[in-house]
Amino acid sequence: AGDAAAGQAKSGICTACHNADGNSMVPMYPKLAGQHAAYLENALKAYRDGQRTGGNAAIMAPMAKGLSDQDIANLAAYYSQQKAK
Amino acid sequence: AGDAAAGQAKSGICTACHNADGNSMVPMYPKLAGQHAAYLENALKAYRDGQRTGGNAAIMAPMAKGLSDQDIANLAAYYSQQKAK
Repeated sequence: AGDAAAGQAKSGICTACHNADGNSMVPMYPKLAGQHAAYLENALKAYRDGQRTGGNAAIMAPMAKGLSDQDIANLAAYYSQQKAK
Repeated sequence: AGDAAAGQAKSGICTACHNADGNSMVPMYPKLAGQHAAYLENALKAYRDGQRTGGNAAIMAPMAKGLSDQDIANLAAYYSQQKAK
């Protein structure tokens, strides 16, 4: 399972689009706060592994490229535990 | 722009996984309630247009196949206006 504190520590680069707490203010970028961790994990792996193209994939694929499965589980744990606003 | 009432009318098939108000109770399936409409539109089009594979795409691509751009805008409007729980 993911470690939310480790996820937060890794989330610096994510905040530009998704905000520190995962409540993106930008309509094109999804809110992550309060989202199911299992879904976030799958989505991030899909970007990393080239299963999503088009749309935000041009941004997200390079972002996700360097992440291990554990990094992804940690990030998913962190955002899933934030409050959706 | 999307018509939320028309979106709700079209959302019957979505409720099995995403719940009537978009607050999915199933970890594998994302919550849609309160998500940005622009993101939901892009995601649904990406499933429809084959830009997402793997993960939930095997379920979502056939679901989205029959939707027009207007249907998608309507669904996005509906779910974006629901309260995230």
